Amino acid sequence: MRQIKIGIIGFGTVGSGIYEVLTTNRELISSRVGTDVDVKRIADLDTHSDRGISVDRELFTVNAMDVIDDPEIDIVVELIGGLDKAREYILKAMERGKDVVTANKALLAEHGNEIYQAAEHYGVSLAFEASVGGGIPIIGALRCGLSANHIQTIMGILNGTSNYILTMMTKKGLSYSQAVQEAVNLGIAESPPTLDVDGTDAAHKLTILTSIVFGYPVSFRDIYKTGIDELTPDDIRFADEFGYSIKLLAIARNLGDHLDARVHPTMIPKDHILANVNGAYNAIYLEGDFLGPNLYYGLGAGKKPTGSAVVSDIMDLARKVRLGQKGPIPALAYVSSPEREIEIQPIEELTCGYYLRVSALDSPGVLSKIAGILGENDISIYSVIQEGRDIKGSVPVVMLTHEARERNVKKAISLMDKLDIILDKTVMIRVENN
Amino acid sequence: MRQIKIGIIGFGTVGSGIYEVLTTNRELISSRVGTDVDVKRIADLDTHSDRGISVDRELFTVNAMDVIDDPEIDIVVELIGGLDKAREYILKAMERGKDVVTANKALLAEHGNEIYQAAEHYGVSLAFEASVGGGIPIIGALRCGLSANHIQTIMGILNGTSNYILTMMTKKGLSYSQAVQEAVNLGIAESPPTLDVDGTDAAHKLTILTSIVFGYPVSFRDIYKTGIDELTPDDIRFADEFGYSIKLLAIARNLGDHLDARVHPTMIPKDHILANVNGAYNAIYLEGDFLGPNLYYGLGAGKKPTGSAVVSDIMDLARKVRLGQKGPIPALAYVSSPEREIEIQPIEELTCGYYLRVSALDSPGVLSKIAGILGENDISIYSVIQEGRDIKGSVPVVMLTHEARERNVKKAISLMDKLDIILDKTVMIRVENN
Repeated sequence: MRQIKIGIIGFGTVGSGIYEVLTTNRELISSRVGTDVDVKRIADLDTHSDRGISVDRELFTVNAMDVIDDPEIDIVVELIGGLDKAREYILKAMERGKDVVTANKALLAEHGNEIYQAAEHYGVSLAFEASVGGGIPIIGALRCGLSANHIQTIMGILNGTSNYILTMMTKKGLSYSQAVQEAVNLGIAESPPTLDVDGTDAAHKLTILTSIVFGYPVSFRDIYKTGIDELTPDDIRFADEFGYSIKLLAIARNLGDHLDARVHPTMIPKDHILANVNGAYNAIYLEGDFLGPNLYYGLGAGKKPTGSAVVSDIMDLARKVRLGQKGPIPALAYVSSPEREIEIQPIEELTCGYYLRVSALDSPGVLSKIAGILGENDISIYSVIQEGRDIKGSVPVVMLTHEARERNVKKAISLMDKLDIILDKTVMIRVENN
Repeated sequence: MRQIKIGIIGFGTVGSGIYEVLTTNRELISSRVGTDVDVKRIADLDTHSDRGISVDRELFTVNAMDVIDDPEIDIVVELIGGLDKAREYILKAMERGKDVVTANKALLAEHGNEIYQAAEHYGVSLAFEASVGGGIPIIGALRCGLSANHIQTIMGILNGTSNYILTMMTKKGLSYSQAVQEAVNLGIAESPPTLDVDGTDAAHKLTILTSIVFGYPVSFRDIYKTGIDELTPDDIRFADEFGYSIKLLAIARNLGDHLDARVHPTMIPKDHILANVNGAYNAIYLEGDFLGPNLYYGLGAGKKPTGSAVVSDIMDLARKVRLGQKGPIPALAYVSSPEREIEIQPIEELTCGYYLRVSALDSPGVLSKIAGILGENDISIYSVIQEGRDIKGSVPVVMLTHEARERNVKKAISLMDKLDIILDKTVMIRVENN
């Protein structure tokens, strides 16, 4: 039986993790694939740094085309990250009939449509288990195990760094910047961790998940996102008093002919299983029309979990190469990926519950004025905390609303914030009760 | 493109659930498989009962061989349950070159080795996603997404009925028999729910999971099991005081050349993610050498979740039939299923923490006598509660031990229980701290 030959483009943290999995578990992998899986070539501009593992120097090249053009290489693993070069290398590898594995969520979110169609066009497989949820095999579950279902809801904690920061703010009462500092010190966050905390990374991953689930490419640019950098320990404490935890959730709901898809700090009931996902862990909660609620939980990043996911993709493809199988599961689980994109509902159309923290003067008529403005905008109050606690010279009036329309909530907030009795910008957090 | 034809043997709850998924989601399924999937024949002794769905009467036959011998049928779905007939039908269908889907965990636990090898021998696929965890795609995850890992630990809540009963005992303080009655009234438990509560069902499922993970058939008969029927609200309350929840766990640990595999009520720390899996839900917690901790959560039984899992298997096989692919992933994920079984460690060799509730006379020397016997048997006490609360005329001395050997614990208990000051059988519950 011939060996399956792998070429790796990009040999940073994840690349060396993959090499470690392939060598440490070589026997296991070979007995599961049915033949040996061997790294034939590694392309990286840096061919000399010590990565803490022993690699034959002869494998290295600085030229990615040495990997792509090698006729003996069956599977190309793209790990350079970024958009332009990665896109170019993947398309060239596919053109040469090679199966491709990537962990590049930004690329799939931004140029997925082109890449999914190229795979179909050239009749090759594209595998990207590691692009969402690190070691959690969520892509495989969506493409296979849950394939009989219409997925109606996805709610995911898809960014471990921001979940770690929120967990520290919640459990230790740290401020946002203290928690970021702690995460940076522990190597959990980069400095500054912009794409992690502003929701971009989670929105990339949500784009990929929703594209698979709905069989249509989803435009990353249309996904609403806000991050966690404006959250305060006060809001986390008030949320707790109302019986909620705050998580950075990536949410998608199937609305039939269009889609609700967004990333923002979200209040969820403390007894929801997602509320108990803490630290750097990721979790994806799904509801299907037949399977009901499902949850997948694990480490969402890191050399080893990501390496585990990439190697499982390699093994899957290697098995097919060994058996000479053609016709893989299409990238989006559907046999043909439609060219048109599914439309995403503008955030102004959203209806959900809202948490509002209004910073007001401590005067008797305040609540009535606020309630008046809310009422005029079809927003009814579900619960209020008005404890007279002084925050930065003002008194917080903290409310949960019944379901309301986002457009109306934003209008009410802009009207309130113009009142003389309101001393600071009103804080708004969306609430998911289901 | 030709239709893929399915034959169903056994048309009870799960069978009609599958028919419902296949008809309700027909369009989705066809667009994911690439062709139509059609039920051609249904064998059941009862061809007349109303199953709440509309099925063409002409599909029915009372003779399973009408399904197996039909040359047009590509995939046979076995759902009659039980051992002898199910085994016979599956082997005959494989002999005729048909792929087989089954949800029959008892059959795979008892005769898996023969069936896995028959599939290999006849070059057909055997799919059994629904046999463990209902709608949770755990088999697929183990066979594919986690395939690069050595799985070191499995801890599963694999029986929804017993988890529901334990949840009611914990949350509402019900006695075991009250909780069973409530589960029976709600249709969650059969009356009596013997195989659910005595650990047999969970042990069947653990046999299947460990066989995949370790690539060796595991003998169901060698898996130690005890059930939940002797648990009392007192023990649940004491566990809570020590910071633990009690769950019926199916546990497997890779010990290198042999295996620790067992099913019993287990105390786990309240902040462990498994401790928060309540009601009729199932969850499987895994640790792999690269992926780290992972959890899968969902409904473990019921017509719809089980139907979802069976249909995902059907779709997977139908895709292969459509593409004319040969050479499926082997049943046990390894390319060749070894004939020898992996050895399971006798329960007497287990080392873990233990909870002991000793029913003693309320006299001053009691704790010293108990501690003496434990010490002589290499068991050291980690924590004691001795509150003087009177249970059935005796005073409970409740202890957690440090890690100890099961053989020694059982010997110590038998010595203690012979003392005059001990009024009732000592209760022992195993503790997992990791």
